[in-house]
Amino acid sequence: MTTSDEFKQAPHKLLVIPGPVEVSDEVLFANAHPTVSHTSADFIKVFGDSIRMTREVLFTKDAQPFLISGSGTLGWDQVAANLVEPGEEALVLNSGYFGDSFADCLQTYGAKVDQVRADLGASVSQSEIEKALKAKKYKIVTFTHVDTSTGVLSDAKTIAETVKRVSPDSLLVVDAVCSVGSEEIRFDDWGLDVVLTASQKGLSTPPGLSIVVVSQRAIKAFESRSVPVTSYYGGWNRWLPIMRNYENGSPSYFATPPVNLVHSYHASLLQITKAAPSLEERFKLHREASQRIKAAATELGLKQIPLDPAYAANGMTTLYFPEGLGAADILPRFAQHGLVIAGGLLAGIKEKYFRIGHMGVTVVDSRRNDVDEIIEALRKSINEAKS
Amino acid sequence: MTTSDEFKQAPHKLLVIPGPVEVSDEVLFANAHPTVSHTSADFIKVFGDSIRMTREVLFTKDAQPFLISGSGTLGWDQVAANLVEPGEEALVLNSGYFGDSFADCLQTYGAKVDQVRADLGASVSQSEIEKALKAKKYKIVTFTHVDTSTGVLSDAKTIAETVKRVSPDSLLVVDAVCSVGSEEIRFDDWGLDVVLTASQKGLSTPPGLSIVVVSQRAIKAFESRSVPVTSYYGGWNRWLPIMRNYENGSPSYFATPPVNLVHSYHASLLQITKAAPSLEERFKLHREASQRIKAAATELGLKQIPLDPAYAANGMTTLYFPEGLGAADILPRFAQHGLVIAGGLLAGIKEKYFRIGHMGVTVVDSRRNDVDEIIEALRKSINEAKS
Repeated sequence: MTTSDEFKQAPHKLLVIPGPVEVSDEVLFANAHPTVSHTSADFIKVFGDSIRMTREVLFTKDAQPFLISGSGTLGWDQVAANLVEPGEEALVLNSGYFGDSFADCLQTYGAKVDQVRADLGASVSQSEIEKALKAKKYKIVTFTHVDTSTGVLSDAKTIAETVKRVSPDSLLVVDAVCSVGSEEIRFDDWGLDVVLTASQKGLSTPPGLSIVVVSQRAIKAFESRSVPVTSYYGGWNRWLPIMRNYENGSPSYFATPPVNLVHSYHASLLQITKAAPSLEERFKLHREASQRIKAAATELGLKQIPLDPAYAANGMTTLYFPEGLGAADILPRFAQHGLVIAGGLLAGIKEKYFRIGHMGVTVVDSRRNDVDEIIEALRKSINEAKS
Repeated sequence: MTTSDEFKQAPHKLLVIPGPVEVSDEVLFANAHPTVSHTSADFIKVFGDSIRMTREVLFTKDAQPFLISGSGTLGWDQVAANLVEPGEEALVLNSGYFGDSFADCLQTYGAKVDQVRADLGASVSQSEIEKALKAKKYKIVTFTHVDTSTGVLSDAKTIAETVKRVSPDSLLVVDAVCSVGSEEIRFDDWGLDVVLTASQKGLSTPPGLSIVVVSQRAIKAFESRSVPVTSYYGGWNRWLPIMRNYENGSPSYFATPPVNLVHSYHASLLQITKAAPSLEERFKLHREASQRIKAAATELGLKQIPLDPAYAANGMTTLYFPEGLGAADILPRFAQHGLVIAGGLLAGIKEKYFRIGHMGVTVVDSRRNDVDEIIEALRKSINEAKS
């Protein structure tokens, strides 16, 4: 048999797109754990511990995690189908591509959606949020913590304060797909109602797990719905007993969980919550790496999409191509230097910029030297393309 | 780095529940492939080839596969949300637990559902199907090819003939979660419209991939809907361009695909479609293994749930406990002999029977000797429990 110590993943280009990201050998090895019964005692413990450690990552005592086989996108369906009844009002604070899509998802399930759109590179201001909340009563308010298309970081803590003050009954939903693990999130202290994320970004696990954490207040809102849930696979009426049973040590069946990926996620959570560096230290390492990469880009004369450094993500960087250059000039050069980065995503400007992810093990495990490699490849690629 | 030849999964109890099942070292190793970008050329090829090989497994030339991160259950949502408009009629041919649940899913999305329920251990008769189809016009007709709760195999070919003859406009949907790879399915020859399955049963891959294959006729029905699709994550309007683009060699984004699991599924499909034994030979091996296991059970005086051997699944066996014995007497004995089997699932009788899965590599790779192990453990466990 191959042991965890022996297992070394194949050499490959460094994956520094804004997700999926690099996965450590240990976490990848756990994805190749012998496939187990979803009702076995061993798996129940792994699943229950994964639920508990998910709470730790978000600093919440009693919020309810849902760990469901699916892409991060499925988190939107869960919010739209469980928390918003057809015809109810939702406010989307839009800072990019993922705001558009979340709004689209909410409408699919019958929500009435208003959007406040930030200018490109900005997040929605507190005064605009306040104005919107005073004009209408919303069942839910959503924002994208880090919009993966723009690299804009919204100020979750201040948004939460504004919503609590102006519209305390609104449920606050954070699309944190590109921020959990890389940006500080204090679920209980900030009074959040939903944080939705996925396994393949700051949590450094392969993709395929939708992770949604829900406050007890939001669970109550869900439980007092007047019409049935409008999704079957995404219905918390199906999943709530499953999550509670597994956490309490009993098996329970609705749909077969992705047992291998749960082992992998569990291995990553052990590294994140039980090993050094601490969560606080992790956020600091993300901030430091981000500052170094962004400073190197500025030195090269590159412009970021985020207009204000305070609203730039710490787990990724979006950079406009130098004048006259495009993806075909830059991305292959990164590849030649051994790095996979990503092109643009936001309609209208997608040809004009590129994206680098710096999340999870790439930032946290200093033995890897990934951040140095990113900076070196950035310098070389830009200088070569310009010359 | 660890190579595919070197990688050997850890020793473990033989997983012979009716899914998830044993996964070969090669397929498990592929699940630990370095995590890649979902838009990389390498991954696009792996994904495109997986789509093409999925067609081969079902003997279809032009049906459209959807490979989406999720449990098998998500296949029901896809059918309910894309093919049935709210208020349209659906007929569910019910041979166990999974018929009940599919009906429930259809209703969640607004279908009007009629059910024809088979007696316990039987599948719905052709005359009952004919009678139901003559009484009302149905948009879709669904049946469970192998109901994992009862082990009842429905005669897919004959059902398809009956539906085509009596109600040719109805779309025929086969829940084949527990039959693809272990039972013969001729998609084009039989004129099926949807076959939905998952990765973790006859396809011998870890769980986490919803696999749905749709006829061009059903795609047309979907494209001529009069109201929008009622799911976001499960919406074929989102996924159809993605699947077509990947198959044609272009990347495309809706939600991050489970890249590691797709590598794993691809490795399994290579074994199934490109290596010996052939698909026909695989079905024969499943029939032979099933007959041997069922004969051993009969010799031990055990009664199966399926009333007629012609309607017993070839990839699993359901057996009533001997008089006076229950799960606590039998399952731990199997575990002592190194096997993980499953208890009952169908409400009303779940305490009275157990289930053994014999699908995929367990049956097909004769070097493993798994079938002999199952028979030996069955004999020992029953004899010990009785004595």
